[in-house]
Amino acid sequence: MAYNKWGTEDEAKELSPSIQKMLSKMLGATKPTPSSKPLLAASNATETDVATIGAIVGSQYIAVDDEQRRPRARGKSYLDLLDWRMDDEVTAPDLVVAPGTEEEILEILHYCSHERIAVVPFGGGTSVVGGITPLPGGHRAVISLDLVRFDALEDVDEVSGLATLGAGLSGPHAEMKLAEHGLQLGHFPQSFPYATIGGFAATRSSGQNSAGYGRFDEMVRELTVVTPVGIIRPGHSSPATAAGPSIKEIFLGSEGLFGVITRVRVRVHPIPEDKQYEAFTFASFDKGVAALRAVEQAGSGPTVLRLSDEIESSVNLTSTDKIGESDAEENKGCLAITMFEGTKEHADRAHAETRALMLANGGRSVGEEPARQWEKGRFGAPVLRDSLMDAGALCETLETATDWSNVPRLKKAVSAAIAKELVDESAALIMCHVSHVYATGCSLYFTIVAGASDDPQQTARKWRAAKSAATEAMTLHGGTITHHHAVGTDHLPWMDKEIEVLGIDILQAVKQRLDPAGILNPGKTFDRGTSMPHSLRND
Amino acid sequence: MAYNKWGTEDEAKELSPSIQKMLSKMLGATKPTPSSKPLLAASNATETDVATIGAIVGSQYIAVDDEQRRPRARGKSYLDLLDWRMDDEVTAPDLVVAPGTEEEILEILHYCSHERIAVVPFGGGTSVVGGITPLPGGHRAVISLDLVRFDALEDVDEVSGLATLGAGLSGPHAEMKLAEHGLQLGHFPQSFPYATIGGFAATRSSGQNSAGYGRFDEMVRELTVVTPVGIIRPGHSSPATAAGPSIKEIFLGSEGLFGVITRVRVRVHPIPEDKQYEAFTFASFDKGVAALRAVEQAGSGPTVLRLSDEIESSVNLTSTDKIGESDAEENKGCLAITMFEGTKEHADRAHAETRALMLANGGRSVGEEPARQWEKGRFGAPVLRDSLMDAGALCETLETATDWSNVPRLKKAVSAAIAKELVDESAALIMCHVSHVYATGCSLYFTIVAGASDDPQQTARKWRAAKSAATEAMTLHGGTITHHHAVGTDHLPWMDKEIEVLGIDILQAVKQRLDPAGILNPGKTFDRGTSMPHSLRND
Repeated sequence: MAYNKWGTEDEAKELSPSIQKMLSKMLGATKPTPSSKPLLAASNATETDVATIGAIVGSQYIAVDDEQRRPRARGKSYLDLLDWRMDDEVTAPDLVVAPGTEEEILEILHYCSHERIAVVPFGGGTSVVGGITPLPGGHRAVISLDLVRFDALEDVDEVSGLATLGAGLSGPHAEMKLAEHGLQLGHFPQSFPYATIGGFAATRSSGQNSAGYGRFDEMVRELTVVTPVGIIRPGHSSPATAAGPSIKEIFLGSEGLFGVITRVRVRVHPIPEDKQYEAFTFASFDKGVAALRAVEQAGSGPTVLRLSDEIESSVNLTSTDKIGESDAEENKGCLAITMFEGTKEHADRAHAETRALMLANGGRSVGEEPARQWEKGRFGAPVLRDSLMDAGALCETLETATDWSNVPRLKKAVSAAIAKELVDESAALIMCHVSHVYATGCSLYFTIVAGASDDPQQTARKWRAAKSAATEAMTLHGGTITHHHAVGTDHLPWMDKEIEVLGIDILQAVKQRLDPAGILNPGKTFDRGTSMPHSLRND
Repeated sequence: MAYNKWGTEDEAKELSPSIQKMLSKMLGATKPTPSSKPLLAASNATETDVATIGAIVGSQYIAVDDEQRRPRARGKSYLDLLDWRMDDEVTAPDLVVAPGTEEEILEILHYCSHERIAVVPFGGGTSVVGGITPLPGGHRAVISLDLVRFDALEDVDEVSGLATLGAGLSGPHAEMKLAEHGLQLGHFPQSFPYATIGGFAATRSSGQNSAGYGRFDEMVRELTVVTPVGIIRPGHSSPATAAGPSIKEIFLGSEGLFGVITRVRVRVHPIPEDKQYEAFTFASFDKGVAALRAVEQAGSGPTVLRLSDEIESSVNLTSTDKIGESDAEENKGCLAITMFEGTKEHADRAHAETRALMLANGGRSVGEEPARQWEKGRFGAPVLRDSLMDAGALCETLETATDWSNVPRLKKAVSAAIAKELVDESAALIMCHVSHVYATGCSLYFTIVAGASDDPQQTARKWRAAKSAATEAMTLHGGTITHHHAVGTDHLPWMDKEIEVLGIDILQAVKQRLDPAGILNPGKTFDRGTSMPHSLRND
């Protein structure tokens, strides 16, 4: 993946004439956000660091050159990408290391604890919340610890539907290895092409097939984690247990604060024998939400269940090749996508029950084509962001979740908060969809396109204000501050509202026990508000 | 509930002639285990304790008399019940208190922290693992803190399917209050008639409808917990979140170690509009297990899915009124029970898909009657244990869970370990069933009936040896030490094998932060093996 955009150069997409027209109509005359290639801050690693860590991992697995440091300097949030379009020096890890075993990691952590060097674990580098920003937190240097060599499918239990995957395996690599056994993980977040198994666990990722296969944290049976005080394998040899508090649930979502995840044992399933698709439209978002709720609460079992609001449907975001072409029949009202997988019998039954509930709740079937189009283009949206930035637009996403009864209130509050900050001389497009459903509620995912200023610093300030207002609205109106993007550094300032001060105290106690020198991701340690969050770093 | 048996005097059942015949045939001549009424240890509470705590809660909510202390002195394990049949003095809480608000609990915990008094939270008193035994752990007295006054249905969100229940509500009371809103929790462990909402959460309980509605820990959205350092509400305003490690999962299964659970917000569902039943038989347990696995992995959605092994099926444990009558057609082979709930459409579809898979995997339908009988008698078994004890039999249950591929190995290992300790001059009946299924594995629940000695002390030693051997076998053969009975004091000696020493360190760190004086359930604090577990207390 290119260090300064989503995906590779090959994947770059030109904006279609229709979207260009839409942009200029909506946002007025825009100027491309300038491209730049800022310098990296010089490395603070000493010769002793390089020699010592090199001796642990082998000299071919350690680097201090800019080519290796640059792609590990930032994640893929809009603010991260903007950093590459400014002239300011960009902070970067001082050293990149790719250990091959847990024992090597343990040795590195010992050295770094002793030498006061910060360590930031690195998987796919797809964080959109500042999760891999190399903040030293008072330490004398920062190491980016790349899990790329943990790339094996370690074992497969086809009877139980379990497999152990190396933390450094990307989504596609994991699926390719499982496919050799006729198995599938079925975890398809938008970051799927680049993100890794370890990252999915560390961030409580959730994929687009979550209605069928659950969130990634629900798929995890066991983890291997290297902490500075030793190796632990939280999780169980059994599918469920009543043996006390869940140690595994402390490491899921821990984002490298307590240790380095190296292996993940996960639930897998046979590659579906059958796949069925159907799309529906609803007269309003609220009616569509009521239908999704009926389907989920009945337990009718779709694999994918999602709903776009009026604006997102009209922009036709379901097909990245057709964005802005809003004349299709399916783009009237709110578009809902359903997909069904499993045995033929199971897909038939789930489809029939779901279809009946969608129709009974006011849905109108528009056939399978929009659902197939959505599936085809579902990893394409992040690539478009780069093109939109080139065209002078601000483009970012954010997400939350809430109870079914609170969906209208939260959607309104978050949209209003964003609009208040972004709508000024130019308009802003604030689109929303539901893409993860639960018995008691659902996620809300917002995609925002607005005009950017000529000055990237000014645009960054504008976005930070909008993001801050949106997050504040979530905490005030019954939403979580993140449904599947994780905390990173961007969401740190709201963690006390999310888990209370006593919750932060508990995480601090665990942190102190496992990482007494505080070397792991020190810039994003949960504390009572004394951190320097990413979202404020230039203010 | 009577202090010295399960249920009330009214519920007592005489053993049927067929079971009496079976017992004498199997176990030889038995003498009734003697009945006794041992004295309670004198209370160590001081006048100041009574006056101070009485001033906090009101004098009508505090007691030091034996009538109040006795029912809170022991849980309902076989060893607990044996204690009441010996002549030795029985340890008991020194004081019983029933606070009415979180603020009162906080004041009590402050007083006890200062005065070095241990606190054991009390719900229904149904622990079968020594969970409520009043161990002082070096403190000068022990208080039993009864949650009985937290008995309200606090709020209901019918749209989202959420309700907040007081921790002291028993299973039936919670269901009655929800039924007024057309809702159901659907959590039916065998302890349902007496156990409480707070206890379900504190122990990670799992009910007989878990295939449909999940384990209790999965139903919990949010908890209110009073810790010695303050009140915390772990959980979220949203159905799922990626905002860091799960604080809620630290309190689920915490068994009163970190705080007192006072309220639980749970997922509820409409009272099912339809209910369908069907029973099947399989030629062998392994074939039956394969069928259950096929059903669960296909996602066909039964509400109840369970399977008895050959011995349990032949004893006809599915109907407590007919135990030992083994001539019925459905008792040849291994009996499986299925039940389906929901809308008529949903139950129809789940039933059809499940039925097809059961038949395709070698099952033979034996109609709905055995399933209906099972449902009718499903809370009756614990009552029979008292009658079996009266008749001179040792009777107890234990449980574990494992991966599907490991079921035969674990069942064999646990059965052999129990048999080795129990089968001597008399035979032992070791029965097993699967009652909780997951995509990757299932539970194994063992019911053991064997001959008891004339000397209860001798019988207790014999059972402790069998329980210890069974638990050791679980840790050696891929099982969890408890699937839904929790840790209590009985399972403490194996916690280091279950969650590793680092896992215990993590829980200790949390404990020290939340309960610095160590007053909460000090006798069962997870530590590195320095505790005095219940299972060894008379050795």
